[in-house]
Parts: sequence; C-alpha cells; structure tokens
Amino acid sequence: MKNLLVGQSGGPTSVINASLAGVIQNGIKSPEIGKVLGTVNGIEGILSENIISLDHFTDQDITLLKQTPSSYLGSCRKKLPDASDDEAIYKKIFEVFKKNDIGYFFYIGGNDSMDTAKKLSSYATEKGIDGIKIIGVPKTIDNDLVLTDHTPGFGSCAKFVANSIRQLYLDTSVYKMKSIVIVEIMGRNAGWLAATAALANADDIHPVDILCLPEVVFDVDKFVDKVSEVMKTKDTTIIAISEGIKDETGRYIGERKDLGTGADGFSHAALGGAGRIVEHLLQSKLPEKIKTRTIEFSTLQRCFSATASKVDVDEAFSAGFMAVEFAKEGMTAVMPGFKRLSSNPYKMEIVPFDVKDVANYEKEIPKDMLSSDGFGVTEKFIEYAKPLIEGENPIIYKDGLIQFKTR
Amino acid sequence: MKNLLVGQSGGPTSVINASLAGVIQNGIKSPEIGKVLGTVNGIEGILSENIISLDHFTDQDITLLKQTPSSYLGSCRKKLPDASDDEAIYKKIFEVFKKNDIGYFFYIGGNDSMDTAKKLSSYATEKGIDGIKIIGVPKTIDNDLVLTDHTPGFGSCAKFVANSIRQLYLDTSVYKMKSIVIVEIMGRNAGWLAATAALANADDIHPVDILCLPEVVFDVDKFVDKVSEVMKTKDTTIIAISEGIKDETGRYIGERKDLGTGADGFSHAALGGAGRIVEHLLQSKLPEKIKTRTIEFSTLQRCFSATASKVDVDEAFSAGFMAVEFAKEGMTAVMPGFKRLSSNPYKMEIVPFDVKDVANYEKEIPKDMLSSDGFGVTEKFIEYAKPLIEGENPIIYKDGLIQFKTR
Repeated sequence: MKNLLVGQSGGPTSVINASLAGVIQNGIKSPEIGKVLGTVNGIEGILSENIISLDHFTDQDITLLKQTPSSYLGSCRKKLPDASDDEAIYKKIFEVFKKNDIGYFFYIGGNDSMDTAKKLSSYATEKGIDGIKIIGVPKTIDNDLVLTDHTPGFGSCAKFVANSIRQLYLDTSVYKMKSIVIVEIMGRNAGWLAATAALANADDIHPVDILCLPEVVFDVDKFVDKVSEVMKTKDTTIIAISEGIKDETGRYIGERKDLGTGADGFSHAALGGAGRIVEHLLQSKLPEKIKTRTIEFSTLQRCFSATASKVDVDEAFSAGFMAVEFAKEGMTAVMPGFKRLSSNPYKMEIVPFDVKDVANYEKEIPKDMLSSDGFGVTEKFIEYAKPLIEGENPIIYKDGLIQFKTR
Repeated sequence: MKNLLVGQSGGPTSVINASLAGVIQNGIKSPEIGKVLGTVNGIEGILSENIISLDHFTDQDITLLKQTPSSYLGSCRKKLPDASDDEAIYKKIFEVFKKNDIGYFFYIGGNDSMDTAKKLSSYATEKGIDGIKIIGVPKTIDNDLVLTDHTPGFGSCAKFVANSIRQLYLDTSVYKMKSIVIVEIMGRNAGWLAATAALANADDIHPVDILCLPEVVFDVDKFVDKVSEVMKTKDTTIIAISEGIKDETGRYIGERKDLGTGADGFSHAALGGAGRIVEHLLQSKLPEKIKTRTIEFSTLQRCFSATASKVDVDEAFSAGFMAVEFAKEGMTAVMPGFKRLSSNPYKMEIVPFDVKDVANYEKEIPKDMLSSDGFGVTEKFIEYAKPLIEGENPIIYKDGLIQFKTR
C-alpha cells in the first residue's frame, strides 16, 4: 500500500487550503492509500526531506483548513530545471519518493506547479519509473490557466473585489461633491480579476464605469476623455485598474514614472503602481479638479477568507478530492479542471486535463468579453463570472477573530 | 404632536446607519412622535430644505440599513459658526425646524456634530425657543470622544484591522524567507485604532510585534533597533503604523518626505503616507535586506460592513434608539454614551452625557494602556478593546453581493 504526498506552491489564495483539505480528506478515507504526508514549502520540502504527517486531521481540522487562507504547508517559487540540464534534482526527488514509499503525489498551484507536475511525470515515463501517480491541482487568483473554465481562488478574490467596491462606493459618495476612487487590482498579464470589478454593478448601485485591463492598450488621451465623459453625469465613480495595464509599446504603466511626475519635478508614484500613476495623470489632465483617491487592494484581495465565495471554497475542495479519485483510478500527469455545463443554473463538472496542455500557457480575456470602447466588459463576461462569487462560506470565529488551522 | 428630524455628519463608518436605524425604528413606533424625517447631507439639508420622509421604513429596510456602510442620508463637514458671528444661519435652521414642526432633532456624528448639537441647543436656550429636544448620537472610528467608554464604529473598524492582519500574516509567511508587512491604519491624533492591531495576536498566531502610535514620539533609531531585535527571532512580522505618528518636533512622519528619499534622489513616498516612509526607512537602515510591503487599509477599514462586529452594530442601533428615549423623557443637549459595567462578562449601560462636556475634546490612549518601550499596548488595553469586536452581524447577500438600503 503506497503513501500519498501533497505540496503547495506559488502565491497564496483564500482557498488553496480548501484543495489541500480535499486531498487530505480523500487520502485519509481511502483504504488503498497508506500514509497521508505533506511536503513543507513545496518541492523544497522534498529536497530537504521536510515531510510531515497529515493523518491526524479531524473533521474539525478540515473545516478550519477550508477557511484558512494562504498555504498551510508553506510554499515555494522554485521552477524545476529541465532534466537534461540538471538531472541530479530529479534523482533526489524520486529517491525521496521511494524512501517514503510515495505512490501518489499532488502538487497544488498555478502555472509553474503544472510545469513541475509535467516535468516530474515526463521524467518518470522516460526513466521507466512506475507506481507513482503525479497530479497537478489548479489554483490561482489570476484565472489564467488554459482549458479549465476557471481556477479555484479566482472566485473568492473576485468576491472581495466586487464587495469592497460596493462598500467603497457608498463611502465615497457621502458628501455633496464629485469624487473618484481608483482601485488597483492584481493581475500582471491578464485582466480577469480587474474585470470582476464590474460585478459590483447591480440593480441598486452602479459604482464602476471604467475598467482598465492589460488586454487593451492604455491610451492616456482616450482614458482622460472617458473619465471626463462619465463625470459629466455622475458625482462618484470607481475606476478599476489592473496592475498590469501597458502602454502602446508594451511597457507597464506602473513603470512609467514619467506619467506620475508632478509640478515639483518629483516622481509621485515611484513606490506606487499603476493606480497612483493614473491618479496623478487625472489630477494634471482633467478639466475640473475632482477629489481622487487610489486604493490598492494589495495582498488583502487574495487572502481575505472571511468573505470567501462558497462556490469557490467548495470547488477548490472538490478539485483536491477529485485529484485523489483520478489518481486512484490510475491517472497520472493530469490536472482536475472545470468544464461548465451551464451558467444559469450554474453547473460544473470536474474533468481531468493533461498537464502538458496546461503548463506554460496563459489565458487572456477573450475579445467577445470586452466592450468595444475598451473600458468595460460585455454581458458574456458577467454571465461567466457571476456564478463564481455565489454563496457565503460559513466562518468560525472566536472572540471576534477568524479561526485557522496552522502547522 | 411634534415631528422628528435626523441627520448624519462627518466621515463614514460601518455602523453610522445602524444608529440611524435605531432612531427611525423608535421614532416610527412612538405614538407621541409625528412624522419621522431625515435631512440630506446633515445641516446642509436643513439649510437647503432637502428633507425627506423616513416613515415608510419596514423591518426589512431597518435590517438592510444596519448592514449598509456610510451615511444613508449623506453627510457634510460643515462646522457651525458661533451664533455671535453669524446668527443668520441659526435663524434659518430654527425657521426650518418650525416650518416642519420639529420637536426632536438627532444629529449622528463625531466631535464636530456634538459641537453642532451643543451650539443649536445653547442658541435655543438663549433665545427661549422651547419645544425642541436636540440630541447628539456618537459615531467615530477614531474612538476619541471623551466621557463615553468607546464610540460606535470603532469596534467594526478594529475587527477589520485585526482580522485583515491575521489573514495577511498567513499570506506573508508562506515562503521560507524573512518578511515584514507594514500596515498603515487610520487615526490622525489618537492611536486607538492602530492599537487594535494587537488584537490579531492570539493563542494560534502572533502576527504583530510592533505598534507605532501618535501617543508616542516616533524615534527613528529606537524603531530600527526594535525591528532588528524582533527579526532576530522571527521570520515574519506585521508592523502596525498609525497614519498620525509624529517626530519629536510634532511633525507628522507622513509629511517627512526626507525620510523616504531614495538613493536616486527621488522622494519615494510623496504620495504615500507614514507607512511607505517607514518602509523606505527600514530598507535603508536595516542591517540585512528583508522583503517589506506596505498595505494601507485606507477607507476600506471604515466601510467594510461585511465583517462588522455584532456588538458594535447592536450598540450603534441602541445609541440611536436610546437617543429617542432620552428625548421623549424630556432631555435635550445630551449624547447617549456608553458606561462600562464590566469587561468580562462584557456589560455596558447607555447613559446621557451633556454634549457640552463632549464637544471639542479628544481622548488619547491613557498611559497605562501603553507598554513601557513605546511599541505596544498593555493587557489593560486588550481587556478594554477585545469585547468590542465580538460577534458577527449576519449579512444578507444576493448573488454574492452584500445588499444595501439606499436612497
């Protein structure tokens, strides 16, 4: 009877631990699986043999793990070299697998982690090492993995973005004056997350009129015109800016310190990102003076479990759980991903994708989800994203503090 | 039968509408009170006669209002002049009161609003205008009103601060490396709110080791020594900085752009506040390079109703409700405030304070709540603040979005 090893990698999300919980729970309950083990700090923990037992997890631990943001097992940013360049590292990894009698290895992460799963499984095939199933489990707030409909972590982040904007809109529209709030949202290469700002608009309030996404070249003049136009008829607006917006030469706006230089010759945006540069732009270019504030959601957006989406938490758990099912069925080199059957009512199926087809590709927002003026999304995007923020994960608090499962 | 008029003033909080809900609910159910009216944008709405009916509020409206951040009636920052300098404005206000047959006026706000309540009631007394009860209802996230044990709005903001820090701590401690997160917290003159960062420390994790509060002079060398000392034994720490910290000359650190000037001669902190300046200080002065990130909670901390403290919401409601009770009992020129009977179990009584004794005073954190090294709080502060973040206000969502009562 072979043992199970699980690790986590890449940037934290609110629900990467829910996927871990799914792997652990299925691992513990499966009679064909021996010990359930975790590697601390991903691949690094294998190399340093920092492997811990997870067999003691109770149902209460699982519940708490599902509301604990970030990576319970710790993370790493290690990208495996090609085996042809550095075979030693592969030998070491498979030696540790053998020593611990590992028959199932699960790696929860984003693009780089799928690359790791791909490389390890290819190496095993090449070397004729069998008896080990290697499965990638997806997570990333960026929602930029290909093939899968979406990624665990995205929905909870989107929910934080949309609800924060709704609350900020009321906060900023309290006085009888014109005001703008610029919110800077994560996403270096794809605007999926920034686009979810549009979910804040509903029947009651319409906070967001302008989205700036990396998929559309940021044109200063067009942008200033758009803001002027919106402010003609509105007192308050929220402008959602992706940190990854670029100019026509492909340079990040967040690096265009020249755009943020004030009358005093100082760069007012050197430590800030795209949001503060755009704020400065508006201050110097708008025909009328409008009170403007920039808010960076920063890492808070990816770790705010307290308001996680239940759909996201449950799906993240299921992805981990199904990963173990797929491995037990004999699959390897796959990633459980989501296939959408219907948006309304929302129906999703978890299916295995080949990690080779996922690793190292990035998915941008398709053109038909972007509005023609370049400052918004279409109804197709809203239909796509709306179900992913549905439902509230019940949170256990003690003395007013969200409770965690920690190592 | 006289009518009731209510207004809101000053900066938004998560629960200022809960106080409004308390006033409206008691007003509607009181047979001795006629119409329940609201003035839009505080005193400005009286001057422009922008007065709306609130009589139609249902129980469902009240429930939604209690989870709607910011001011339902809108706000203003108008401070009344002395009647001896500008009597016209007083004449106008009392003329509008008379025209609308107002017998009860409630003004929900912070220090300036208590000043307004004081001035209006003094003017009424001087001029022999009777038949109108004028009551201030406290709110401020800053918790700096005197006499009252604490202020509505503070607890929910503190809860956001403490829980955000707990989640950020897990997020930042995920890699095997040293890292610091600086969180900048609101509070220009008093450190109450920044001090609540210490509530994040519990049996499971201890994120916060250093607090920088306006009550203690910010000494660069002492601060750098303290951080060095902490980082000797810890991989990750959160430093909580009040936006209002000052140097030995009383200048705000957030204005000491010289401290944030980098090797390139640019001021890297010109648009940021104290947090980014302190980040830059650490980068240039710490003996080892430590990954440091600054997060400004900005206005999100005062409007994040989704995780409001139930104690705070309920108390804010009660303050509004009791304000109407006091008025019905014949009181005027008072503010319902909190008198603590016991911290454990938490017992609070709502009592009337004279607005004259509240307006224009500010309450700093007392010395015995500050630790001797100047970088923390004592157990006395924890005992004081802990009950205020207790309990979760149940939130109504629709399609994943927090629902509001809006005008």
